[in-house]
Amino acid sequence: MPRPAPARFPRILLVGRHGSSDATEHLEILAALLRERGHQVDIAAEPAPPVDAPPAAPPAADLAIVLGGDGTMLSVARQLAPYDIPLIGVNLGRLGFLTDIPVAQMASAVPAMVEGHCVEERRTLIAAEVLREGVRRERALGLNDVVVNRGALGSLIELAVEIDGRPVYAMRADGLIVATPTGSTAYALSAGGPILAPEVPAFALVPVAPHALTHRPIAIPDTSAVAITVQRGRDASVHCDGQAHFELAEGDRVVLRCAEHRARFLHPEGYDYFAMLRQKLHWSETPERLRRG
Amino acid sequence: MPRPAPARFPRILLVGRHGSSDATEHLEILAALLRERGHQVDIAAEPAPPVDAPPAAPPAADLAIVLGGDGTMLSVARQLAPYDIPLIGVNLGRLGFLTDIPVAQMASAVPAMVEGHCVEERRTLIAAEVLREGVRRERALGLNDVVVNRGALGSLIELAVEIDGRPVYAMRADGLIVATPTGSTAYALSAGGPILAPEVPAFALVPVAPHALTHRPIAIPDTSAVAITVQRGRDASVHCDGQAHFELAEGDRVVLRCAEHRARFLHPEGYDYFAMLRQKLHWSETPERLRRG
Amino acid sequence: MPRPAPARFPRILLVGRHGSSDATEHLEILAALLRERGHQVDIAAEPAPPVDAPPAAPPAADLAIVLGGDGTMLSVARQLAPYDIPLIGVNLGRLGFLTDIPVAQMASAVPAMVEGHCVEERRTLIAAEVLREGVRRERALGLNDVVVNRGALGSLIELAVEIDGRPVYAMRADGLIVATPTGSTAYALSAGGPILAPEVPAFALVPVAPHALTHRPIAIPDTSAVAITVQRGRDASVHCDGQAHFELAEGDRVVLRCAEHRARFLHPEGYDYFAMLRQKLHWSETPERLRRG
Amino acid sequence: MPRPAPARFPRILLVGRHGSSDATEHLEILAALLRERGHQVDIAAEPAPPVDAPPAAPPAADLAIVLGGDGTMLSVARQLAPYDIPLIGVNLGRLGFLTDIPVAQMASAVPAMVEGHCVEERRTLIAAEVLREGVRRERALGLNDVVVNRGALGSLIELAVEIDGRPVYAMRADGLIVATPTGSTAYALSAGGPILAPEVPAFALVPVAPHALTHRPIAIPDTSAVAITVQRGRDASVHCDGQAHFELAEGDRVVLRCAEHRARFLHPEGYDYFAMLRQKLHWSETPERLRRG
Repeated sequence: MPRPAPARFPRILLVGRHGSSDATEHLEILAALLRERGHQVDIAAEPAPPVDAPPAAPPAADLAIVLGGDGTMLSVARQLAPYDIPLIGVNLGRLGFLTDIPVAQMASAVPAMVEGHCVEERRTLIAAEVLREGVRRERALGLNDVVVNRGALGSLIELAVEIDGRPVYAMRADGLIVATPTGSTAYALSAGGPILAPEVPAFALVPVAPHALTHRPIAIPDTSAVAITVQRGRDASVHCDGQAHFELAEGDRVVLRCAEHRARFLHPEGYDYFAMLRQKLHWSETPERLRRG
Repeated sequence: MPRPAPARFPRILLVGRHGSSDATEHLEILAALLRERGHQVDIAAEPAPPVDAPPAAPPAADLAIVLGGDGTMLSVARQLAPYDIPLIGVNLGRLGFLTDIPVAQMASAVPAMVEGHCVEERRTLIAAEVLREGVRRERALGLNDVVVNRGALGSLIELAVEIDGRPVYAMRADGLIVATPTGSTAYALSAGGPILAPEVPAFALVPVAPHALTHRPIAIPDTSAVAITVQRGRDASVHCDGQAHFELAEGDRVVLRCAEHRARFLHPEGYDYFAMLRQKLHWSETPERLRRG
Repeated sequence: MPRPAPARFPRILLVGRHGSSDATEHLEILAALLRERGHQVDIAAEPAPPVDAPPAAPPAADLAIVLGGDGTMLSVARQLAPYDIPLIGVNLGRLGFLTDIPVAQMASAVPAMVEGHCVEERRTLIAAEVLREGVRRERALGLNDVVVNRGALGSLIELAVEIDGRPVYAMRADGLIVATPTGSTAYALSAGGPILAPEVPAFALVPVAPHALTHRPIAIPDTSAVAITVQRGRDASVHCDGQAHFELAEGDRVVLRCAEHRARFLHPEGYDYFAMLRQKLHWSETPERLRRG
Repeated sequence: MPRPAPARFPRILLVGRHGSSDATEHLEILAALLRERGHQVDIAAEPAPPVDAPPAAPPAADLAIVLGGDGTMLSVARQLAPYDIPLIGVNLGRLGFLTDIPVAQMASAVPAMVEGHCVEERRTLIAAEVLREGVRRERALGLNDVVVNRGALGSLIELAVEIDGRPVYAMRADGLIVATPTGSTAYALSAGGPILAPEVPAFALVPVAPHALTHRPIAIPDTSAVAITVQRGRDASVHCDGQAHFELAEGDRVVLRCAEHRARFLHPEGYDYFAMLRQKLHWSETPERLRRG
């Protein structure tokens, strides 16, 4: 007699890192585990990088579980964002900021979570549009960040930035990162940006190697519209999460807004954002003996 | 026949920088100008530094105009915060972040503003409490920031930080700045913190010269309670806006929350926060020719 | 009767910014001025960017005067470095770090300098070699810096760095800048590197947006050999002064040493490096009134 | 029959951290070990902090071995600097930058070193003088750094800096660190300064939280004389290695030069500065797998 469908998440989509045999093996183990508990399980591979469009039809799933690293999680989250499907991230290597369940604990942690022993967190995405002579040429989402930067020729680019139609500055730099709280611990942090706790409704504008030393990171409300115009630059381009790339010509305008939908992440009960930061950034929780001198 | 009282701001309090004869002279000019227009005008000097408590009785004023620099504005704003009285800042020297009307334009700008040609901005303050063995010993407000730091002996201090009761980190540093958006362009910026636009409902935690290189600035929601405990430190102290100072002993706990009241600032019509930043930080609005190389 | 040849710098080479009609006009004025004083004067245009090799035969000149910006000066200095010819830099726009004579003062300053009223400064260059499978594929000089960085695809690269054959670190980053003291005020400064005074016999290794927050700028003796190996990176490249570019494949090794020759710059009498820094970086020489608070 | 005196280091001085019973115990073990091998051994405690003057008579020792942490090593090195006595550092806790022999390896490492299996490194010190109205009031040495900073009142100070008699800048800040290469990995690193490899003959000037964002760390030749004048500041003071402290009044002048003598450190054979940095700063020597995205 078949087991009755579970109340929560009857249909689960499992997604493994593109081209990873390690992921495939663990996907099978997890699928068996979940089917045994009555879930209907589908398995998919992460789409290859250039294909970043959301699927034409909504996936027939109430939950997606991603096996991979933060990169895979970013890619799947962008694609599923319009469909309001929550995600769980299982990490195949070192713990990530987004994939917080080590594969060794998958078999114990995931069943508890799908029964509802989990906490949900919603993360904003950035919706980016590229306008050329006023006409939209591209659109894409960024869960971490949208970056406008120079390319291989090594020459600076010059960007003019407006917020809600008001000019902010014109800046020469390697690039400009617009990061969500999620992305504030990724590339933006490397470039000297602040960490934005997930509940802060803001984007961080973080210049990379700005020519003028007074160009410092700024956090602005995530209800703002940011427009970045390429004033000069022979080989500028725009990047979403370091995964989707478009070339930009002089005069192109990249317009960024908070995306309509948010990503939904499920964490095990007891999840603590600051504990995760401590682990990733090697902070001490308990005082060390003060060094002498 | 006396002129009828103006509809807005019938009673105006003028406050000049403590001990400044330059301020006194301009206060008289401004008082005459406003009385002529029917306002009832009182003149006060900024209280001397150690006296930072709000006045016992609410000032009989509908508006306060401050002549001085940002320091005077900070001091007056903290004192008037509980009484919901808006402030206008006239700068006697270089333009400040808060005192945005140059004294040379006072006679033309202020009358227009008191007739209502102005925009209002509300800024959060931090309410700080010092607890010793669980008992509150001090309380104070910070409009810019509250800073816990080491003193003259030059030795590091060790601070344990909690947010909403959860431990974040224990850190050895010269100090830790907790800044409002208003203070994010003051001391916190010097210490490497991000600029927080005034509408971002956040505080920035900015370590000063942290021993561990991974301690980076963090923005957290301004609804959070931050507790800073002095784990070690022979001469730690806490500072509000660099103006009110209290010594701290080991084990003392400084608890910070968003203050109940906000400061109200009036700006001339057309005020633009980013234009002010550009001017203070020498950013270009218009592109410069790209340098070669 | 022809004027006798001047004792110092009888033969002068004038070089103008490539394709600049403004430069051409001032070159003619300067040539006439110098010929009148008995100098033999040749005029050349800066070679177009890809041609960066030193001329086949030593230029028949005792002095070169460059009209352009710092970019032109870098390009000419690299080409003339092997021939021990001193350079004077006249700036057509804003003063540069290297071109310290404004064009408005050219007619008064240059004649005094060519008569010997000048101070000489020698600046080190970096000699770079690109090795692929142990075989040298490219060589070039950098007066400012040699940079290994990622390209347009926006993906991090991973670099392994050795100094004098000893491993230092393997690092994921946007790139790594190796800068001379001359270059320490250029791109390296934007990326967070220190200023190295010209007399400090050191190179600065400055990572750009390093993934690990503990990768900080390091100054090493300029007698060291630095080897940078591209461990990973689909589109890495190496750049000398942002002007000469070579693509790198995984496994390629960029070896950097102090070049055999130094550039020789002539400055007007009374030249002061720190005065120049103050002007370019907007430092105050005289104290400002302390802000309150 | 007594063992013949060893050829190298016949007389050894052992110095333990002031007031550490842990140090005392290991000192006795080490003393016995060395006496057995024919060395004449004296034991001393690190002098208490305020006493920082070199001993009146040269210590009768050919070598000093310090048991403690980097703080103890700094203190002993400053006192022995005039006497050209080499030092070995044994660390009682976590490895330090200067005390590179873990106590667990003391019994095997130290005997080999005193027989000559060691490498010697010489490190510069800074000689500081405090002048009041032109009269020298204090003098002290710094092996890590000399710092002029503000005190407990939390107000900025204003410093005017000259190098070799030429003005460099006037700066408002929490303080200014002048660091040797040795100190470049200590407080100066926390404040954003560069690492200076020990062979770089330079000092780093590193401002702490400078008011102007363009005040960046500068490395200058260690043959330079640096003069720091306190232009403003109610509670400024000067610190050597964070251990010797002097109060400064407005107008006081702190003059810094390379000290006449250098500290001599002995390391085990195979000592590698960059290996030590890697360990302390958690750098990877071998490449990590590139993260996706």
